[in-house]
Amino acid sequence: MNATPPIRNGNLAHPDAMRFVDGERLIAHLVRLASFGGGEALNDGVRRETLTPQELAAKQWLCSLFDAPGYRWLQDDAANLILRREGREPVLPPVLVGSHIDTQPVGGWLDGAYGVMAGYEVCRALDDAGIRTRRAIEIVAWTNEEGSRFAPGAMGSSAFVQPALLDSHRQRRDAQGVPFGDALAQALQGLPDLPRAALGRAVHAYLEAHIEQGPVMEADGRVLGVVEGIQGVRWFEVTVRGRGAHAGTTPESARQDALLAAAQLIADLHESVLALGDDTLRWTVGKLEVAPGSVNTIADRVVFSIDLRHPRRERLDQIETLLAERAARLWSGCPVGVKRVMDKAPTVFHPMAVAAVQAAVEATGEPACRITSGAFHDAMYLASVAPAAMLFVPSIGGISHHPDENTAHEHLIAGARALTAAVLKLAD
Amino acid sequence: MNATPPIRNGNLAHPDAMRFVDGERLIAHLVRLASFGGGEALNDGVRRETLTPQELAAKQWLCSLFDAPGYRWLQDDAANLILRREGREPVLPPVLVGSHIDTQPVGGWLDGAYGVMAGYEVCRALDDAGIRTRRAIEIVAWTNEEGSRFAPGAMGSSAFVQPALLDSHRQRRDAQGVPFGDALAQALQGLPDLPRAALGRAVHAYLEAHIEQGPVMEADGRVLGVVEGIQGVRWFEVTVRGRGAHAGTTPESARQDALLAAAQLIADLHESVLALGDDTLRWTVGKLEVAPGSVNTIADRVVFSIDLRHPRRERLDQIETLLAERAARLWSGCPVGVKRVMDKAPTVFHPMAVAAVQAAVEATGEPACRITSGAFHDAMYLASVAPAAMLFVPSIGGISHHPDENTAHEHLIAGARALTAAVLKLAD
Repeated sequence: MNATPPIRNGNLAHPDAMRFVDGERLIAHLVRLASFGGGEALNDGVRRETLTPQELAAKQWLCSLFDAPGYRWLQDDAANLILRREGREPVLPPVLVGSHIDTQPVGGWLDGAYGVMAGYEVCRALDDAGIRTRRAIEIVAWTNEEGSRFAPGAMGSSAFVQPALLDSHRQRRDAQGVPFGDALAQALQGLPDLPRAALGRAVHAYLEAHIEQGPVMEADGRVLGVVEGIQGVRWFEVTVRGRGAHAGTTPESARQDALLAAAQLIADLHESVLALGDDTLRWTVGKLEVAPGSVNTIADRVVFSIDLRHPRRERLDQIETLLAERAARLWSGCPVGVKRVMDKAPTVFHPMAVAAVQAAVEATGEPACRITSGAFHDAMYLASVAPAAMLFVPSIGGISHHPDENTAHEHLIAGARALTAAVLKLAD
Repeated sequence: MNATPPIRNGNLAHPDAMRFVDGERLIAHLVRLASFGGGEALNDGVRRETLTPQELAAKQWLCSLFDAPGYRWLQDDAANLILRREGREPVLPPVLVGSHIDTQPVGGWLDGAYGVMAGYEVCRALDDAGIRTRRAIEIVAWTNEEGSRFAPGAMGSSAFVQPALLDSHRQRRDAQGVPFGDALAQALQGLPDLPRAALGRAVHAYLEAHIEQGPVMEADGRVLGVVEGIQGVRWFEVTVRGRGAHAGTTPESARQDALLAAAQLIADLHESVLALGDDTLRWTVGKLEVAPGSVNTIADRVVFSIDLRHPRRERLDQIETLLAERAARLWSGCPVGVKRVMDKAPTVFHPMAVAAVQAAVEATGEPACRITSGAFHDAMYLASVAPAAMLFVPSIGGISHHPDENTAHEHLIAGARALTAAVLKLAD
């Protein structure tokens, strides 16, 4: 690779710049990054939760990886790690390209790491192509996207766009009682030489490459996904109140069985939601707890979750109304209470940013699709302050947040090529 | 009470002996017994699990309560505590009257305590009536009926009828890792002066008075229940295997949602079982566990219990077949496995013993009924070696194994009166 000699500032057509993406280099960097918190094999999984020694070591490695004229490593008060590639007009707001390197307690090797290393490869490709863009490009690894160690997730990107949030983030504690603020201070001290970038800075545009984390693209034979937005999400906590009683002595007519009622309600809601025939809707009961939870005692109380997602707010409202109607009935004599515990409005990405991704994807010649993200991403927050868009590559078997998470190497490389073209378009 | 002067051996009609039951004495003894492990008020509940210091103190109190010619306190190797009231023909196998004084972690004041103290009141009534029966009467407090501290329950009565079981019982451990054998040895040492009775002795008949622990008698306005047997019980463990995936990214068509499948199967089984129109059948899912149990992850695996009860084996077989048929389908694409983890055959009490209880109940003039026990009792084991039967009194609100467990005093007293007549009938 890279046999082509460097070409100077801006005189290369954007699509051509993607030829300078070095696939072997990208994969090697991803594999090396996975070793921080990873095992012998890639499918041993990666244990690199936010602000842990494993994540800090990974950041120190990243900083050591590249130090050249025209580049600066920075961090901000939220411990977001930034590699700034200077532009021809340094006063202009930069194009940000990012994702995260923290993982779930046991995650896979790609997830956010892919977006960060793909961004890094964009810089290397631009170097090799001899391109200096008009705007600076900043590659960002956002802090605590996962939310597994400290809830909620996306603390780094949310504090970036709304710095006042950082104070409340600092109060959050992990399962061991460590405040996020303490872990943050320690992480910042771990990279003592980095200058501080400001939170809340102006951003020209934001791009994020990510694995799909779902099975749709693979099933449709697509390699690159132009992400149009992120589904809105509402979480509900549903409480079914029964009456605890002896399983052997209580006849049917005297029962108020909270678990039976919950089962009936879940099965009924599934039928009702299915009847809408909306393939875009996601409706999941993932958590269900029974009290007292004894084989020979009729359940006194069941609490279950509903995770509801759709790109359109009106549909979310409609399902919420349906849920309230169904819950208002008595199920096996049990009253049901529904509480909305989370509400994230749908994110619609900026047409200009989406168009840049679309053009870049088309230039690769790979089979492409338009897609809405089912998962949260840092791009959700960045979209509130700048034109933002995302680029997806397929997940094998739709698996993510799991040691088996994987994507074909050629798809990872294709993604980096498209990202290069899209960044160049936005930064020039 | 007890104004009538003593009458000598056997020359009192059995029904008349019940007049000597002293209701105030019975209630006072029950209240005192509840103080061992109990709180200020009866509805504070009783914490007197098997072989605890609380239970030992209660046994020491029982032994101190009564020491008179013609009586002997004994214990056997299973720490069953026995008050033997000598008969006119000491070589004949005795009539046993018993239940248990151990409770659930937090139980009510009656449960097994009622059967033991009602048996004790029978002896006192026979004394007051001046009656010496032909056969000895033994009042027994069986060890670990509840099974809450050490599983399985009814260790004392099962070891009594099948002494070889004691060795395996001794290996069982409580949640703190204490072997039953150690707790047993310590309890036996707590009553060092008591002679040892043999396990596996011949028994002429066994009677047990108990609260119903269900709502049926109260609902029907009945005061005394002639128990014809104990329902057969089968426990099943049902495992539904799904595929864990992201709630936001996985479309309906790609899901194998184990929790949805479990809900559908439970709701369907309920419909199918209900369609049989059998009021005697008890069918309960009391325990259900979801993995990974995360709001935004499709359930990978659900394991739930089924507690199935009926007085007839054929019906149990029929439901088990139905369960296998339903489980053989794919529910939301998920395979289902069913494992039978417990099988207790129905107990049919001996006609002679049931007839004795029936006649005694009729002699009281109280509203009576025939009933099948939905709960296990020590009588289940005794029935395998001797004619056995039970007598029920109503539970207010059907509540048991709970601090609110209660029965009207006059119903408790009526039960002791009927028990007196039945014991006399069997012992003479």
